[in-house]
Amino acid sequence: MTRRNSRPSGHIVLTSHPSGASEKSIAIDWGAATPAARGPIVGTLTDPQRRNVVGSHSGAYALFRALAIASGDLDPVHRPDLTNTAPAEPIGPFPQWHQHDKIVSLDPYGHIVSEAYADLLNDGWDIRPSIAVTKARINMAELQDAVRAGRLVPDGRILNENGEVSVTKVAFEAVWHLPGVARRCGVDEKDLRRTLFEQTGGMFPELVTRPDLHVFLPPIGSTTAYVFGDMAAITDPERQLACRVHDECNGSDVFGSDICTCRPYLTHGIEVCIESAQRGGAGLIVYNRKEGRGLGEVTKFLVYNARKRQPGGDRADAYFERTECVAGVQDVRFQELMPDVLHWFGITRIDRFVSMSNMKHDAITRQGIEIVERVSIPDDLIPDDAKVEMDAKRAAGYFSEAPVPDRDDLARTRGRALDDY
Amino acid sequence: MTRRNSRPSGHIVLTSHPSGASEKSIAIDWGAATPAARGPIVGTLTDPQRRNVVGSHSGAYALFRALAIASGDLDPVHRPDLTNTAPAEPIGPFPQWHQHDKIVSLDPYGHIVSEAYADLLNDGWDIRPSIAVTKARINMAELQDAVRAGRLVPDGRILNENGEVSVTKVAFEAVWHLPGVARRCGVDEKDLRRTLFEQTGGMFPELVTRPDLHVFLPPIGSTTAYVFGDMAAITDPERQLACRVHDECNGSDVFGSDICTCRPYLTHGIEVCIESAQRGGAGLIVYNRKEGRGLGEVTKFLVYNARKRQPGGDRADAYFERTECVAGVQDVRFQELMPDVLHWFGITRIDRFVSMSNMKHDAITRQGIEIVERVSIPDDLIPDDAKVEMDAKRAAGYFSEAPVPDRDDLARTRGRALDDY
Repeated sequence: MTRRNSRPSGHIVLTSHPSGASEKSIAIDWGAATPAARGPIVGTLTDPQRRNVVGSHSGAYALFRALAIASGDLDPVHRPDLTNTAPAEPIGPFPQWHQHDKIVSLDPYGHIVSEAYADLLNDGWDIRPSIAVTKARINMAELQDAVRAGRLVPDGRILNENGEVSVTKVAFEAVWHLPGVARRCGVDEKDLRRTLFEQTGGMFPELVTRPDLHVFLPPIGSTTAYVFGDMAAITDPERQLACRVHDECNGSDVFGSDICTCRPYLTHGIEVCIESAQRGGAGLIVYNRKEGRGLGEVTKFLVYNARKRQPGGDRADAYFERTECVAGVQDVRFQELMPDVLHWFGITRIDRFVSMSNMKHDAITRQGIEIVERVSIPDDLIPDDAKVEMDAKRAAGYFSEAPVPDRDDLARTRGRALDDY
Repeated sequence: MTRRNSRPSGHIVLTSHPSGASEKSIAIDWGAATPAARGPIVGTLTDPQRRNVVGSHSGAYALFRALAIASGDLDPVHRPDLTNTAPAEPIGPFPQWHQHDKIVSLDPYGHIVSEAYADLLNDGWDIRPSIAVTKARINMAELQDAVRAGRLVPDGRILNENGEVSVTKVAFEAVWHLPGVARRCGVDEKDLRRTLFEQTGGMFPELVTRPDLHVFLPPIGSTTAYVFGDMAAITDPERQLACRVHDECNGSDVFGSDICTCRPYLTHGIEVCIESAQRGGAGLIVYNRKEGRGLGEVTKFLVYNARKRQPGGDRADAYFERTECVAGVQDVRFQELMPDVLHWFGITRIDRFVSMSNMKHDAITRQGIEIVERVSIPDDLIPDDAKVEMDAKRAAGYFSEAPVPDRDDLARTRGRALDDY
């Protein structure tokens, strides 16, 4: 283990009040027409006087970085060498990048900082990408099954004989313009900032003490987008776009737990995206790290136990209630910021939206994006034990082509008991 | 949308200095022999005078909760109803739960708070679980393939004919005892606290201003453990334990990206765990949310582009170098805290450790846990494009049964170019 410069310097600078040196920083004019006019997002920790945000880049990973520095593995003054890291495929610019309040939770220029701020970087400014665009070939056993079953037909370009699919993928870290986020929440910026501070146990006092800083790099789950087919088709009104916005569920997405429909819905969404791409359109999967409806997995597992153990067992008619007892709320995913990624891709119309969620649907259409057709998960992809969730959602008004269960149906739909595993 | 009590009260309390009211809180005696003697971890936001930690429960999801409160969806004073949420299967206690510095990054009593602190909960204290234990049945297409190929044989108990597997799963949120974490980092607690504060852009000033608070609920990726077979076998010296400690890689774990071996290695690890369980032993998969070696996906995608575009293309002999150029370090996963989960399960010996990683192996054995046999991924599970990673790791001394590639081999192993997707 190499130890480099791991000892902090002598003087602790608390960040909660302006240092008087902020004239060295560049003001951010959010929503300006060019990256130069907007100004760079500077979250550097090595050059504090140039910072113009609250928080740090890769905020959700900041504590890993801090541990690596504490234990001497990482040089605290390291700056990334951005050579050859530029997007593997050009995307944008789109009018949404500089329309007022269209995008409030990511930096529309986050993938092109090495080009847009080349002069500043040459002058020694530490400006970092918050978006990265690369290419990948993905291979999921379910897609191979779909090929074998004839649901998908290889074309040698988007989908090859082995079931491999070519995609462009984009990773996004959150960059919040607090005035715009407040408007999406329907509250004053001041109230939002204060709630963010108080309800995190006091994370980042600058949220309340530095009203002059309007941009926040929050330590929150990030987003990844997978594009299928021709990137240009996404914004071509003559071509179709299929889209699924998927919220993380590690238990199903990775391990295939059968209590919910998450992974089956995801793979179904990918099939629909591939079909759209093969017909000359495009497909888009947006994956948001919002485990357990934004409540985390500990809460989720507590709710599973409460559902399985309640009188009468795991019932569709008590599905939402149990989450609310434990968590105080059914869902904290807060879909109002989610459409920002769609705006970033320049999307104004989704032809096939692969989701049952009214919250997602409504958040997207409220942002002025048209949804032409909604596609729910085919019944044969729903695991038996997930019928509790599915019936509860249908009864609660989630979109579905299937008949809405009545009160008697709901009381009859039961999941597995804890001693039946 | 119901709005309840969403307006914060009039007076902002900054948290960076003691209020003088902390005599109402209970001191934590980390490592004490019983939960009562240790004292509860109190991270409540509704009863600040009783807090005895820095940060908040479900810290990585705190901003989602804060947004839900700001927008009026969640009552800020809600307290969880823990009825029926207790562990679906009893685990422990084990001597490791109260041995000095054995466990420093989670609360060994985090799953039994409703039992251990029942009196305080009845008195109105807001004490929350940081660990949850439930049961699940998982079903992965790869396991069905393994059954079809005859590598796995259904037994009707652990693995059924459909390829479904019964597991007990445990979600952990991090609870850091800062003096112990500092010892694992090899630094003074004071230096650690200061680095955590400074290198996160000033998250939680109490890290430096409240040296009286030694426990931190960090907003960092959580951990999930999947147990296969009889829980009692984990600590039975007469029975075998197989284990894989897997670090998150969303691109492969969920989407099957072929540039790395993450999901194939995970499914291989699960196969080994099932075999061990079927022979009367147990299997354990530990899943750590440490995306992209703890650097996050934006950095990871930047590195992919730099690897693919460097002179000579994506080469095994430059694999680690590119990560280091962009990130300043090859890896920030910091495996020194990882063995805590193994201590929590009472593990003293792992018979089959399914991993090539020396960092993981060494961190575990340094913690006094014996590793009998190391199992690397079978060659036929390595995707073609992942051979760059595999050869680079073998040459760097990672464990493998395969021959170590020489310098010429390394220069010959090439990955796909960006225009070849």
